[in-house]
Amino acid sequence: MTPPRFAPIPAALPATVPFVGPEEIQRRQGRDFDARIGANENGFGPSPHALRAMQAELPRLWQYGDSSSHDLVQALSAHLAVPARHITVGEGVDGLLGNLVRLMIGPGDPVVTSDGAYPTFNYHVAGFGGVLHKVPYRNDAEDPAALVEQAHRTGARLVYLANPDNPMGSWHKARTVQAMLDDLPQGTLLVLDEAYVEFAPADAVPQIAPDDPRVIRMRTFSKAYGLAGARIGYAFGHPDLIVGFDRIRNHFGVNRVAQAGALAALQDRAHLAEVQAHVAAARDRLAAIAAANGMTALPSATNFVAIDTGRDGDFARALVAALEDRGIFVRMPGVAPLNRCIRISCAPAPELDILADRLPQVLSRL
Amino acid sequence: MTPPRFAPIPAALPATVPFVGPEEIQRRQGRDFDARIGANENGFGPSPHALRAMQAELPRLWQYGDSSSHDLVQALSAHLAVPARHITVGEGVDGLLGNLVRLMIGPGDPVVTSDGAYPTFNYHVAGFGGVLHKVPYRNDAEDPAALVEQAHRTGARLVYLANPDNPMGSWHKARTVQAMLDDLPQGTLLVLDEAYVEFAPADAVPQIAPDDPRVIRMRTFSKAYGLAGARIGYAFGHPDLIVGFDRIRNHFGVNRVAQAGALAALQDRAHLAEVQAHVAAARDRLAAIAAANGMTALPSATNFVAIDTGRDGDFARALVAALEDRGIFVRMPGVAPLNRCIRISCAPAPELDILADRLPQVLSRL
Repeated sequence: MTPPRFAPIPAALPATVPFVGPEEIQRRQGRDFDARIGANENGFGPSPHALRAMQAELPRLWQYGDSSSHDLVQALSAHLAVPARHITVGEGVDGLLGNLVRLMIGPGDPVVTSDGAYPTFNYHVAGFGGVLHKVPYRNDAEDPAALVEQAHRTGARLVYLANPDNPMGSWHKARTVQAMLDDLPQGTLLVLDEAYVEFAPADAVPQIAPDDPRVIRMRTFSKAYGLAGARIGYAFGHPDLIVGFDRIRNHFGVNRVAQAGALAALQDRAHLAEVQAHVAAARDRLAAIAAANGMTALPSATNFVAIDTGRDGDFARALVAALEDRGIFVRMPGVAPLNRCIRISCAPAPELDILADRLPQVLSRL
Repeated sequence: MTPPRFAPIPAALPATVPFVGPEEIQRRQGRDFDARIGANENGFGPSPHALRAMQAELPRLWQYGDSSSHDLVQALSAHLAVPARHITVGEGVDGLLGNLVRLMIGPGDPVVTSDGAYPTFNYHVAGFGGVLHKVPYRNDAEDPAALVEQAHRTGARLVYLANPDNPMGSWHKARTVQAMLDDLPQGTLLVLDEAYVEFAPADAVPQIAPDDPRVIRMRTFSKAYGLAGARIGYAFGHPDLIVGFDRIRNHFGVNRVAQAGALAALQDRAHLAEVQAHVAAARDRLAAIAAANGMTALPSATNFVAIDTGRDGDFARALVAALEDRGIFVRMPGVAPLNRCIRISCAPAPELDILADRLPQVLSRL
């Protein structure tokens, strides 16, 4: 029997996956985590209105979802003050990034990102044959000047910037992002991943004209809106770019219940404000826990905190593994020097209590 | 401002979409359909156990779904009597077909299908630069001999066969499909779309060794299990092929509630049997409605019936449009001679009553 003949691009891909999920680790360990604070999920949960809307939609789940997510797009249009034709809804930022890369990148096309930034973007770029050119972080933040310079040097078609950043939680001011647009080469598209934007200060959110063809912005219902498992997010940008998604996307790919939940979640501003307050308090608590254990929390504009262990990547890796052994799921950045940190998600008090309780013991044994 | 520079393959794609959804038509018409019987959705609905499982999972929707759909894969393994490493779960057959084509087809690679078969497969083949070679239906069924012959002539990497077939509802015996495998060129993969298999007679379901590298089979929870809006299905085949999906799929792309619903649905054999009985009765009812209106229902092994109008495509198109105007959503095959038919989904009695009531008036005015 001959092995399957994959097409050239997938044939050359490694079999690795961007992330090992917490369920996978639980199965290996033979028990569940007591604190699931590693994937930047939002344990404060979705809006009760969203839960009710989704429950009400379940009996209609025999129907395919609306292929254009019309009602959600209309609501997003009002929310963003951007015309509907500038917006596309997709299966989370992961799905939208995959479709964007597919739309823009052919074999050998250069793409610029930061070394240590979101691995799933890199997974998609490699998955469509693009060539990644990485620049280092600078002061634990993505480095706009270096990204722009690398874009000029390589003729990049896409430049990725997460603002706020994952995995470090750092952020840039709006004017810095706007200046990037002016400095990028003609024809380079800035992929502005704003998955954590609802946790960022207002002056980190750039005002960009809806017709600006130099940028596409991506946002999600997975983080602030607490719907990670629903797989729904959106992108907005120039209509000529947005309409391109219709050439390749799975038109009936967005779950019907997710559409109903996202619409209700978007409209519950009070719940969002509560989540934002809870997250801010949890960031402070995480900083206090870090300090009590001789470590330093980095400033964060997200729903997680990168905690500088003051040691190296080997130490941080051992710490993450030891926390896993003690029932606590956290993650860490993948490359030096970011990997001196561990990354812990904001969560309700009981899970942070577990962390506060067990972290000293875990550290004392390392 | 320059237009976006799409990669060569998407740049050459048309802006068309495989299907216009019923919500889209409703918005154009300014009112909802009274009978939604056009998309082969299952109006008998999902298992009550599945609904309860999904409702119970909603509060955990802040968590990403299990990236390997482990529990569902284990249950499918038992259900299919196939080891788990032969199975991958994805975002419905549409999502799985997209990933399969991406995995196997590069620019210019030949792919064989039937002229009038599932358009979304063709959409994916074009979407990855493949070249479609179509053969005609024969007696309103896909023609295995012609598909095999075309595969030899073109050196096709993929050959698509839906058994039972959409849009005609026809089917082949298991031995015919098995014989196809033996007759295909070395290295050609049969894509066996079994989305409607639960409605087919037992002797239409081939026994194929799990290690057979010549075929990949795809099934869904959208049809018999009534979960179209959940976006969840599965593929099974040789593990060397199945593991390839891990190189390109969105690892956290399957909705968490969908996983819970699919697992519960799979285990409710009694509900499936009820649906099968309802569908069989609805097929008979549709045949009677067709006959009462001077038309002929074709035999069907699916949850829909192709009804031969006895006229041509222009007539059928006018009939579909007139039914839409009267609040009834149906579809029709896209190419001659199949397009002398309209395609109506099995549905609960109230919707078929509406059809029975309005069809004579609609026909009398054409």
